[in-house]
Amino acid sequence: MKMNDKPLILVTNDDGVKAPGIRALISYIRPFGKVIVVAPDRSQSGTAHAVTIAHPLRLDLISKEEDYEEYCCNGTPADCVKLAFKIVIRRRPDFLFSGINHGTNASINIIYSGTMAAVLEGALAGVPSVGFSLNNYSHDANFGPSGKFVSQIAANVIANGLPDGVCLNVNLPDVSEDKIMGVKLCRQAEGTWKEDFDEREDPNGRKYYWMKGVYAQVGDGEDTDQWALEHNYVALVPVQFDLTATKALESLRNRF
Amino acid sequence: MKMNDKPLILVTNDDGVKAPGIRALISYIRPFGKVIVVAPDRSQSGTAHAVTIAHPLRLDLISKEEDYEEYCCNGTPADCVKLAFKIVIRRRPDFLFSGINHGTNASINIIYSGTMAAVLEGALAGVPSVGFSLNNYSHDANFGPSGKFVSQIAANVIANGLPDGVCLNVNLPDVSEDKIMGVKLCRQAEGTWKEDFDEREDPNGRKYYWMKGVYAQVGDGEDTDQWALEHNYVALVPVQFDLTATKALESLRNRF
Repeated sequence: MKMNDKPLILVTNDDGVKAPGIRALISYIRPFGKVIVVAPDRSQSGTAHAVTIAHPLRLDLISKEEDYEEYCCNGTPADCVKLAFKIVIRRRPDFLFSGINHGTNASINIIYSGTMAAVLEGALAGVPSVGFSLNNYSHDANFGPSGKFVSQIAANVIANGLPDGVCLNVNLPDVSEDKIMGVKLCRQAEGTWKEDFDEREDPNGRKYYWMKGVYAQVGDGEDTDQWALEHNYVALVPVQFDLTATKALESLRNRF
Repeated sequence: MKMNDKPLILVTNDDGVKAPGIRALISYIRPFGKVIVVAPDRSQSGTAHAVTIAHPLRLDLISKEEDYEEYCCNGTPADCVKLAFKIVIRRRPDFLFSGINHGTNASINIIYSGTMAAVLEGALAGVPSVGFSLNNYSHDANFGPSGKFVSQIAANVIANGLPDGVCLNVNLPDVSEDKIMGVKLCRQAEGTWKEDFDEREDPNGRKYYWMKGVYAQVGDGEDTDQWALEHNYVALVPVQFDLTATKALESLRNRF
């Protein structure tokens, strides 16, 4: 980014370009610079870091204004980021913001999250990148109270950048603005999904299954994102894409 | 696992139940216990940790023998593992082995990998889990030279388990057995994909894009999986699902 230039900011999500969450995010981010939106044309929730290699990708311009362009793509959030860098912008943007996701991406949810996959794609390319998620899965969730905190965190990242190889996973509590306790730096909570399946029978007598599940806390601690979110803090976790279990390297050394 | 009982072992992959890689893995693992295979009915390469929530899942029994059952599923590798635990086995298996993937999952490839997503699902449920990948993307890759090392690592894990919250990402070099230098404990190499897209035009004059890319080494070091694989070692990386960038927690403390 050249000095005095407006920063070039990529905005994406996984709930699709029409989702209220990304509309809110666009409105909070536009004051900071030139915004390019490249988002999925429909919900890609739960697609994690999937990339599309078995069929071709489409990219459609939806609207263009001064300092603003909006595209949709038939691929995953990770596809959107790759297409945005290579085809739409033809360079790395200065910043990437993803969301606001309809539903939490705290704790283990991060590994299933398309919103956060887009953020990791940004970080992999060296772009300071932040994902925002609201703790409410509903289409009609209220993104209003998040505005102040999204703007504050975006301003902080635009002014100061982020450490190399680090992006942010920000989860916002679903309460009115006056009840939000502030921003809290956290670690990822230990947790898991207790899966269950609805077993049904189709009209031909063949069984099929709908996945459903309940989040189950495993670890605990006031320093986790899950705790912060449940106590009405904006939970902010610095995230890396090196999955090496460094502590285990030593204990496994005598075995392999 | 009760003493003296045969261990119950889940085998899965992301290339689909018919892929030569999983057929090789099944043959290497069957001597160790009762094997249940639940694998995708077609290639799910690049699906990462996607889960299927927008449409129902199907599960079909393919074959059943003494100490062996084989199922296929229309979902992703993560779906296969969840269905296997909850519907097929109705408990956690004692061990989970995934692969052998047609193509490397060393370095950053792990975050796109369905093979390793299945392994992370196992680890999340507390099951000692290992993913195997051969450094050859071809359908006709030769999985023979891997056999000795797959068996050796599986035996080690079955005898000694794995640390809590840790699974293994094992990448096998594509050379003859006598050229394999042994097993090397590593960290995940820093690397990225330099994406490119093939831009084409359909018969209606609309553009479409095929994703293609080239792996680009970023970091370096003889302690990385990428180095090991390139030097004909079997690269073994202990992997965790906590993505917290612990080192960044301190540096960000004064900003948030």
